[in-house]
Amino acid sequence: MKIDGTPYRTIWPRPDETVEVIDQIALPHRFQTQVLRSAEECADAIKTMLVRGAPLIGATAAYGMALAMKVDPSSRAVVAAHDMLLATRPTAVNLRWALKRMSDVLARQTHGDRFSLAWVEAAKICDEDVEICRKIGEHGLKIFREIAAKKNGRLNVLTHCNAGWLACVDWGTALAPIYLAFNQGIDVHVWVDETRPRNQGASLTAYELGAHGVKHAIIADNAGGHYMQAGEVDVCIVGTDRVTRNGDVANKIGTYLKALAATDNNVPFYVALPSTTIDWTMEKGADIPIEERGTDEVLKISGRLNGDVVTVDIAAPGSPARNPGFDVTPARLVTGLITEAGVCEASEDGLRGLFA
Amino acid sequence: MKIDGTPYRTIWPRPDETVEVIDQIALPHRFQTQVLRSAEECADAIKTMLVRGAPLIGATAAYGMALAMKVDPSSRAVVAAHDMLLATRPTAVNLRWALKRMSDVLARQTHGDRFSLAWVEAAKICDEDVEICRKIGEHGLKIFREIAAKKNGRLNVLTHCNAGWLACVDWGTALAPIYLAFNQGIDVHVWVDETRPRNQGASLTAYELGAHGVKHAIIADNAGGHYMQAGEVDVCIVGTDRVTRNGDVANKIGTYLKALAATDNNVPFYVALPSTTIDWTMEKGADIPIEERGTDEVLKISGRLNGDVVTVDIAAPGSPARNPGFDVTPARLVTGLITEAGVCEASEDGLRGLFA
Repeated sequence: MKIDGTPYRTIWPRPDETVEVIDQIALPHRFQTQVLRSAEECADAIKTMLVRGAPLIGATAAYGMALAMKVDPSSRAVVAAHDMLLATRPTAVNLRWALKRMSDVLARQTHGDRFSLAWVEAAKICDEDVEICRKIGEHGLKIFREIAAKKNGRLNVLTHCNAGWLACVDWGTALAPIYLAFNQGIDVHVWVDETRPRNQGASLTAYELGAHGVKHAIIADNAGGHYMQAGEVDVCIVGTDRVTRNGDVANKIGTYLKALAATDNNVPFYVALPSTTIDWTMEKGADIPIEERGTDEVLKISGRLNGDVVTVDIAAPGSPARNPGFDVTPARLVTGLITEAGVCEASEDGLRGLFA
Repeated sequence: MKIDGTPYRTIWPRPDETVEVIDQIALPHRFQTQVLRSAEECADAIKTMLVRGAPLIGATAAYGMALAMKVDPSSRAVVAAHDMLLATRPTAVNLRWALKRMSDVLARQTHGDRFSLAWVEAAKICDEDVEICRKIGEHGLKIFREIAAKKNGRLNVLTHCNAGWLACVDWGTALAPIYLAFNQGIDVHVWVDETRPRNQGASLTAYELGAHGVKHAIIADNAGGHYMQAGEVDVCIVGTDRVTRNGDVANKIGTYLKALAATDNNVPFYVALPSTTIDWTMEKGADIPIEERGTDEVLKISGRLNGDVVTVDIAAPGSPARNPGFDVTPARLVTGLITEAGVCEASEDGLRGLFA
């Protein structure tokens, strides 16, 4: 997508065989990029959340494997790089998948130029992710067109958290249909849930929509229900961290509340995902363990003050907090799942229909 | 209620015939009080939100009328003080009510000591508010006892925004049953919705619960639905700014989302209110105009930094925001209305049953 008119991906190879990424710690306060020169620097970038978002983490790790091969193409080095990179975010499904794919490819090449092979494979992983997201966007766009056709004016879309191109290599998942709609001249406007406590909506979604030129407004997470009651939301679309076999959706905390409001107001509620997000081994959402995160995310916040970025204490001193990171939206509240293979009902039958 | 063991009201007369209030601008970062010496100082306190909350605004205005009489007990001065104080928050129902009551009482006393009369009447308004809140607390406590009786462990209550004693003279509305339960030894724990964008939950509700010693945890507004799904909320209780004749409830933005989640999880959802909050002239909630507030409340936030209180920019630079202040919870999602006259169904029949 574009930042002030210039097309970007979140990660790209440089002619000098290093990798450049958008520094996502500095966003939204500053736009800057950083060059990663080694597997170690890639691992650090993942650990410090310089890069974040499941697909982007996988892509960065893949390039990390390649950069390791530049220094030492031995089979021992393949294993060492794999293990070091995997340890950065041990529960990330995409990270594990990307590292396994790189290791498998390198295992087949016992001699010759392992670096070149890995370099090409990492680029393939990136290109494939872009293509998957673009396909999600195309399938979502059809839905948006149908909804827009029933309206005279602008198409109002509500989204929660950040499932945009900053979390992927390009396009994003939930935001891909929005970018396609915008690029094709549909008058689209996005309600951006702030997404407390980490504010990925106000920080990242608002940033990337604004930088590409898409109309949007940041709202408190509390406000979406009111706008649905007022008829000012035509469709909701969110990403997901995991979809269970029955179509239940784990996503950023607060997603469930928006799905309830959408259902109560007959607003379609869609979830966009690459098929790698489907957990076929898990029967239902209630089985998903919900990560409890640090309470400083609730009690403190970072912001700009006279050109600096500072962290302030916002709550009553001494009051404790709790901070569940995700919630589960039951399949019954989901209008449809938008995947790279098409759109299906949020159910085991629906999923098996697309992925036999 | 108590602050660190000392009982307080939010406003009280001093022996030197001035008035002292808790400075609510400084909360939760600092506890301090301020002395109001004149009608003008009372008006300023309301305008600057040194005092806030409908009942407390009314009480402060009443004392403002009294202080005006100390300087000039003429009938012209009664009208002038009334008009000056009314202009501070022109839409506040309680403010108008308190000023009319003071003017009516003073109109009957055409000679003699108008100051003493007004001073006594202002104290009466305060005492009556305390008694109304205490009665709301007693009726709510019965409900809490019934719910607690079905449980072995602690009673988990969720509340949104601040409907506590800081908004009133003492006790509060939604928090009154919580204080009574706590004082009577019930093991009560409160989930405090942060309540973006003004954070009255994290700032005021958490502060007053903590100062009185009530167990609580601040949570992002996004988290309540998850805790209800997890069975960790036994009852929800909130205040309200206006209840229409059919039992619809206007309250702080986000209340509707919690009522949806409560209904979806069979958690009772109660609204606590003095009967003055019922708008008999309005048929249903959809008729209530929703106040759109300034966007800086969404885009900026104040907090403590190295002993100072500073305001930081938290969102993507240049992104617009929207900020509706209230939403309407349909009566069908409300388990009951808790008033000083008892508990009733959220419906015209229910309300007329209590207030014939």
